[in-house]
Amino acid sequence: MPPAHPFDDDKLKEECGIFGVLGTKDAANFVALGLHALQHRGQEAGGIVAHHPDHGFNSARRFGYVRDTFTSQDVMETLPGSLAIGHVRYSTAGSKGQTAIRDVQPFFGEFAMGGAAIAHNGNITNADALRRELIERGSIFQSSSDSECIIHLMARSLQRNIPERMEDALRRVEGAFSVVAMTRTKLIGVRDALGVRPLVLGKLDTGYVLSSETCALDIIGAEFVREIEAGEMVVITDQGVDSRFPFRPQKSRFCIFEHVYFSRPDSILGGRSVYETRENIGRELAKEAPVDADLVCPVPDSGTPAAIGYSLESGIPYAMGIIRNQYMGRTFIEPTEQIRNMGVRLKLNVNRALIRDKRVILVDDSVVRGTTSRKIKEMILDAGAAEVHFRIASPPTAWPCFYGVDTPQREKLLAATMSEEEMREHLGVDSLKFISLDGLYRAVGEGNGRDASSPQYCDACFSGEYPVEPADMIEKGFEMKAAE
Amino acid sequence: MPPAHPFDDDKLKEECGIFGVLGTKDAANFVALGLHALQHRGQEAGGIVAHHPDHGFNSARRFGYVRDTFTSQDVMETLPGSLAIGHVRYSTAGSKGQTAIRDVQPFFGEFAMGGAAIAHNGNITNADALRRELIERGSIFQSSSDSECIIHLMARSLQRNIPERMEDALRRVEGAFSVVAMTRTKLIGVRDALGVRPLVLGKLDTGYVLSSETCALDIIGAEFVREIEAGEMVVITDQGVDSRFPFRPQKSRFCIFEHVYFSRPDSILGGRSVYETRENIGRELAKEAPVDADLVCPVPDSGTPAAIGYSLESGIPYAMGIIRNQYMGRTFIEPTEQIRNMGVRLKLNVNRALIRDKRVILVDDSVVRGTTSRKIKEMILDAGAAEVHFRIASPPTAWPCFYGVDTPQREKLLAATMSEEEMREHLGVDSLKFISLDGLYRAVGEGNGRDASSPQYCDACFSGEYPVEPADMIEKGFEMKAAE
Amino acid sequence: MPPAHPFDDDKLKEECGIFGVLGTKDAANFVALGLHALQHRGQEAGGIVAHHPDHGFNSARRFGYVRDTFTSQDVMETLPGSLAIGHVRYSTAGSKGQTAIRDVQPFFGEFAMGGAAIAHNGNITNADALRRELIERGSIFQSSSDSECIIHLMARSLQRNIPERMEDALRRVEGAFSVVAMTRTKLIGVRDALGVRPLVLGKLDTGYVLSSETCALDIIGAEFVREIEAGEMVVITDQGVDSRFPFRPQKSRFCIFEHVYFSRPDSILGGRSVYETRENIGRELAKEAPVDADLVCPVPDSGTPAAIGYSLESGIPYAMGIIRNQYMGRTFIEPTEQIRNMGVRLKLNVNRALIRDKRVILVDDSVVRGTTSRKIKEMILDAGAAEVHFRIASPPTAWPCFYGVDTPQREKLLAATMSEEEMREHLGVDSLKFISLDGLYRAVGEGNGRDASSPQYCDACFSGEYPVEPADMIEKGFEMKAAE
Amino acid sequence: MPPAHPFDDDKLKEECGIFGVLGTKDAANFVALGLHALQHRGQEAGGIVAHHPDHGFNSARRFGYVRDTFTSQDVMETLPGSLAIGHVRYSTAGSKGQTAIRDVQPFFGEFAMGGAAIAHNGNITNADALRRELIERGSIFQSSSDSECIIHLMARSLQRNIPERMEDALRRVEGAFSVVAMTRTKLIGVRDALGVRPLVLGKLDTGYVLSSETCALDIIGAEFVREIEAGEMVVITDQGVDSRFPFRPQKSRFCIFEHVYFSRPDSILGGRSVYETRENIGRELAKEAPVDADLVCPVPDSGTPAAIGYSLESGIPYAMGIIRNQYMGRTFIEPTEQIRNMGVRLKLNVNRALIRDKRVILVDDSVVRGTTSRKIKEMILDAGAAEVHFRIASPPTAWPCFYGVDTPQREKLLAATMSEEEMREHLGVDSLKFISLDGLYRAVGEGNGRDASSPQYCDACFSGEYPVEPADMIEKGFEMKAAE
Repeated sequence: MPPAHPFDDDKLKEECGIFGVLGTKDAANFVALGLHALQHRGQEAGGIVAHHPDHGFNSARRFGYVRDTFTSQDVMETLPGSLAIGHVRYSTAGSKGQTAIRDVQPFFGEFAMGGAAIAHNGNITNADALRRELIERGSIFQSSSDSECIIHLMARSLQRNIPERMEDALRRVEGAFSVVAMTRTKLIGVRDALGVRPLVLGKLDTGYVLSSETCALDIIGAEFVREIEAGEMVVITDQGVDSRFPFRPQKSRFCIFEHVYFSRPDSILGGRSVYETRENIGRELAKEAPVDADLVCPVPDSGTPAAIGYSLESGIPYAMGIIRNQYMGRTFIEPTEQIRNMGVRLKLNVNRALIRDKRVILVDDSVVRGTTSRKIKEMILDAGAAEVHFRIASPPTAWPCFYGVDTPQREKLLAATMSEEEMREHLGVDSLKFISLDGLYRAVGEGNGRDASSPQYCDACFSGEYPVEPADMIEKGFEMKAAE
Repeated sequence: MPPAHPFDDDKLKEECGIFGVLGTKDAANFVALGLHALQHRGQEAGGIVAHHPDHGFNSARRFGYVRDTFTSQDVMETLPGSLAIGHVRYSTAGSKGQTAIRDVQPFFGEFAMGGAAIAHNGNITNADALRRELIERGSIFQSSSDSECIIHLMARSLQRNIPERMEDALRRVEGAFSVVAMTRTKLIGVRDALGVRPLVLGKLDTGYVLSSETCALDIIGAEFVREIEAGEMVVITDQGVDSRFPFRPQKSRFCIFEHVYFSRPDSILGGRSVYETRENIGRELAKEAPVDADLVCPVPDSGTPAAIGYSLESGIPYAMGIIRNQYMGRTFIEPTEQIRNMGVRLKLNVNRALIRDKRVILVDDSVVRGTTSRKIKEMILDAGAAEVHFRIASPPTAWPCFYGVDTPQREKLLAATMSEEEMREHLGVDSLKFISLDGLYRAVGEGNGRDASSPQYCDACFSGEYPVEPADMIEKGFEMKAAE
Repeated sequence: MPPAHPFDDDKLKEECGIFGVLGTKDAANFVALGLHALQHRGQEAGGIVAHHPDHGFNSARRFGYVRDTFTSQDVMETLPGSLAIGHVRYSTAGSKGQTAIRDVQPFFGEFAMGGAAIAHNGNITNADALRRELIERGSIFQSSSDSECIIHLMARSLQRNIPERMEDALRRVEGAFSVVAMTRTKLIGVRDALGVRPLVLGKLDTGYVLSSETCALDIIGAEFVREIEAGEMVVITDQGVDSRFPFRPQKSRFCIFEHVYFSRPDSILGGRSVYETRENIGRELAKEAPVDADLVCPVPDSGTPAAIGYSLESGIPYAMGIIRNQYMGRTFIEPTEQIRNMGVRLKLNVNRALIRDKRVILVDDSVVRGTTSRKIKEMILDAGAAEVHFRIASPPTAWPCFYGVDTPQREKLLAATMSEEEMREHLGVDSLKFISLDGLYRAVGEGNGRDASSPQYCDACFSGEYPVEPADMIEKGFEMKAAE
Repeated sequence: MPPAHPFDDDKLKEECGIFGVLGTKDAANFVALGLHALQHRGQEAGGIVAHHPDHGFNSARRFGYVRDTFTSQDVMETLPGSLAIGHVRYSTAGSKGQTAIRDVQPFFGEFAMGGAAIAHNGNITNADALRRELIERGSIFQSSSDSECIIHLMARSLQRNIPERMEDALRRVEGAFSVVAMTRTKLIGVRDALGVRPLVLGKLDTGYVLSSETCALDIIGAEFVREIEAGEMVVITDQGVDSRFPFRPQKSRFCIFEHVYFSRPDSILGGRSVYETRENIGRELAKEAPVDADLVCPVPDSGTPAAIGYSLESGIPYAMGIIRNQYMGRTFIEPTEQIRNMGVRLKLNVNRALIRDKRVILVDDSVVRGTTSRKIKEMILDAGAAEVHFRIASPPTAWPCFYGVDTPQREKLLAATMSEEEMREHLGVDSLKFISLDGLYRAVGEGNGRDASSPQYCDACFSGEYPVEPADMIEKGFEMKAAE
């Protein structure tokens, strides 16, 4: 399986995409298309559960891309019915590649009043404690996934109906989550009280859709209705959409990194295309950190919109100085006569004739470990560039995320251990500038920047201010930022 | 296997890439990397032949991408030696997907004085007649590939040595070809007398490289030396490069479509990056066919450099109005409730929030059948664009290519049956303009445009003027353009 | 996957083989060998769980033959440790080929005091009721297998330690079972109170073995110690073997069909080789049902020992009149010009030159549906045999088994609907004789035959006398034999 | 792929089976069935070529068993037509497992007057010289198979029609061969002048069949017509069978080892079933080499008929003292704590309870290297046998075969370096006796034994008297037996 992004190993990675459809024939086929459109949120594996009145619940789980696994007649025929949900996932760093197929969601449970399946995007910060408690009471876990706690909590709830059992279960769960679930007749969507992870509602001619992002509504021709609100649960049946707010109300804290990198540029967040927001970030960056140069080049592909914005604001011509190989590979056998930076060459090539003797501004979305930034700089200099200036479309990433994003341990984050000038020296570039946290807030539409006393977004990866205490991680020794 | 380009089925397709290395350990590993960099020239299958003094000639042929087939230790270990050549190929429309693995090059032949392998990019226009003649004399063909004629002609040559046998054979061959070949000790490169298909020479610390394009030199860190000249044969040994000109001298006629679409933008042709040439095409197009609009958007990915050029020349902002799905699929099962233009949606999505109410210039590299152009226009209008203007970075494609490019039959080419205005109506856009043939020549560096009495390039697909008569096709009924 | 026996579809089928090893390095490798030797007890799938102090519990489950699935270094390296158990299974008719990999045993559960894995041979006759009760209490089942009840019952037991929890669980279970289980330090074996299914204890230089049959001790060079007794539980640790009898004592009722067909001829049951018992059955049959003939031929391979016995007793020469194809196939595409009895021809061929004009006695182990018996008779007559006499090494199979054997529904059993003479006519043979139930008892060593008031074996498939009431089946409408 | 016979590595191996059908729809399906029945003659790979007037020649070549490769609709649909031939092959020791798919027959050649395909069983003893000559003249070989010479000789023949070209070609070929070939309208069968390898003619309702053995006629319900004679060529069309004798007449020398081991026991050779001949061999052996013992046991499966014959003649009871595992494996990972003779245990087990304290006669078909004979003896003694007597159903194998059988080099043949008594000591048995060459001739029906001045069979592997001089091997240094 080829990598999805040239520097997957040096990026924060969204861990999941979720999707559900009620009220149309062949619901699983729609779900397959929706998951294909959400593939950037999780490339390792995918699963679909569908329900048909005559054939009950059926599920399929597969490793690999949706386009390779949920496209055969053989597989899709086993998933009949007008109600289906699905999930794509990325393995977390912690699991050491040992993901078993039984860890692939949606999870299914047979309860006394009927079955239910759930798909979860996010991370439960008290999962260890919940798991211990459930095992003590006699539950048997079939996976190593934290998300399985939810289905066991539901199985043991004293409530009679599944939506109420789910409310009951989710009230015990701490952390960030968006959930899509289904019973024999209902499609259910929930976002945690802070609304950290996204979830949107769409409408087909004869049915409803829940999706992590709007780009997956487009692929099936569904109309975008609205975002599910923070703390909201929607229970959708043939009769329509019923909305509830089962959690204690809080000010919402949506993940600001969805704007920077996770979401697809053609998705709509907060009424504006993600592409435009990223172009705005580029413009802000050009204002905050101008530099005299000949060309503005993106680090493909995620740096592209911000580089366009930087070019438009600064007037410096935009150019594709780095070309991405459309057939990226990961695993070629290196000849004994060593090739410098072979790993990067498999994915990118510098446009040598274009770059030679030019002063180049490179725009990237973020710096995580910094390893690939160094290699790109070397390739650009090898090609004869006169100067290299890095401009980064996010503030320094100095803290790990515990809400459903795969981040290295804090020590591995370049910005956790170095100042900006130290990073510049480490990367060996002529200048290095990150957008400010306030600049980022302005770019996403908060004209006055960040409200330090009550931030409008979750920005823990930049600020170290965690809106939900990561209980399991603290138990394992993680030290939170000292209060100031 | 996913498609390489979102509209493979509506593009002209280069049919082959070739690569060879002499004089370095693990030559086959270098060849695998080179073929990976040339994958855009042929995605269906690939082959490598290597020679080692102790283990003789060994070969491997595989369907699929190089990154998936020539990356395992198991395969590469079977290809030892410091001399190797390789080939990637695209199946031609005519073969109806029945390509057998024995059709995959390089071809190998055991001659009385030792073995030789050859890999061929191009098309032999008198192959049918040659094949009949050879069978009559007792040759047994192992493939349905025209290229196999070369090896049988070599087997029957009266010359003693392999390079001379190859000269002998290629003098009987009509058409366009670049060839990379090897014996136990020699690496051989040849271009036909017109030099229609590309071939370049590179240098490693301890050896030499032949490649279809310079981008494949970059991936292995080889230095670009020069292009092989039209009509030249180079015979490379440990002692260096020997050059000959075995064919009757003619004015060269390089394929101009390599500049427009086939070659990778980071390759260098005629001393300039292909990217810059395409940006130039966009600038020429902006001068020839200006229009008042809000945004210039490329049809991804091949329209991107021309769109940037158009934007730079016109001052209209460049934007990514169409987003390509990084995980393109081809084969999803369509739900019974039909999705409009599902085929296109699997590959592209319109940036709806950006496009709404805007006058949009769409820049594409070429129009072949026109089927996808129509669908893209529909998606853009569905998203609420106010106006759609198509600008095409090549002249109307009105004639098939017989020199190693997969083109539809003449009747299927939109420009063969419609005027520009008819095409505009057919596509349903507000305006449609192609770059002029002279404009294209200027963009590739011919300041005075095309020399009509003796054109500098092969442009038969646009002009219908074929530099080599397609004998087999004429026998099958193809009618050439009437002399004026 | 080729069929294991030429007439798998017309035989009763044992559903499971179980095996466990404690106290030797690479225990999983021993288990793989043991399961290979038990493959005749279940061909569909296999699983192994191993425990290593540093690496915890690891498991692998695979469809297909052990020789194909548990022989690669890749798989076996994931199963380190000196304690391991394994299971091979056959899918039951009822599951319609929909077996999921999660239905493949051993099952694993994480309890508050540590994990345990169990492998089960047999059938739980009150599984439906147990499952309903457990779901009502909040257990979530991961498989459709009845055996999973045991692990949930254990999870909910109030006992502190795993062996006691297992006793607790198995006291709730009705039916026939042999179980091999493991904790981090213990290997546990249990047989139900009637001892219906087999289980034996073996000894390695440095450890202990539990196995369904002795033939699997031979393959690893283990010494046969003794059979586990009916109703016994053995708990094996580094310290040795501890024996308990947790169930209410009853007279044992071992499955008599293990002697007739299920067990391998080189296994030892009750101190005698199964081969000899089957030869005895043939001798008894020759005494009970003599006939004048030229040749005694087995239906290969399972009829062979009884045919040899018949020949030795009767003095009629033994010959291989039917030859089994060593490369049996199941799925050839039949030419439109139809071939008579093609299904049988793929597996067997008649030794035409040998059979012609001979009076032939055919010895088979059993008649289930009778479909293949008819086809074999036709082939023999086509080959020109003068007479065909069937002799069957078991009494008429007139009742289904509910204790872990795959049998057709009662209506499909030939002997359930026809008298012996009707069967003879239906099969179209010159004579047909089954061994008597008393004769069978004598052959297995009960000199006085069957004790009708208190039978020494479970012979429900012949007699309709079920030692354990099949509760779930009765609920589903099965009618037991009326008391006389 | 599991081994076909427990001791493949210590047996002589037939290298090919051939089969052809003309005059019935779906001829390729019949060929697939025929090859399945001939699988014992070659397990490594198979190929089928079919011809249909509308679709021309089509072929499929596959590694693995016919039951796994030529049973899918996908493959068989590509082979339409009423004329087809096929081939199964075993790789020879010399090829070191490097067989490429292009070495798999039938071979196909396009000639000026149309195509032809041929399948060859045997070995060309002057292939090296022929190959050198053909390459010198400009032929290009596509395989490393000697059989390919035939098709190149045919391509260069001056004759006009294919049957005459084949006569022309085969007159240049030395060695032993049976050939099945086809043109667009003809099915052709040939045996060399000595008739070393078998070939028979069969009849379907609407067509004809050629096959290596009669057992493959039985599977498709074809009637056995007659053996093709030594030196005969049959050319079969819709009009019937035309017979010719293109070679210089000689006394036939059929391979006597076909009776001993290669052919299936249910095939008919010389009017008698192979099974009966082998039973006769056992009877002869009992007369020549009697011994006082308790049991006669075959080494399964090939020793079975001779063991039955020995028992019938001697009156000593026949018993299955060694049980073959129906699911033979080759590649289990051996635990570090070593298991004695694990290789043999994977395939066989001794019936310990039966063997203990008995004097056992073991009957095997041949002794090649003797390695497995030693291991079987050890297992029998480990099981407590009182005495072990080996009786071998063929004379000592002291010379390699050069006529299409895979034999070790002469030095590796036990009988080439030891006397019978030395072999007995080496194997460590109480007695060892081989049938005499005269005895073997009597068993196959030559009442007066072998005619030393003009032997009736090819028995070079026993006698060292080669009916055709092995020219290539002599060139490579093989020394023939000195004339006496």
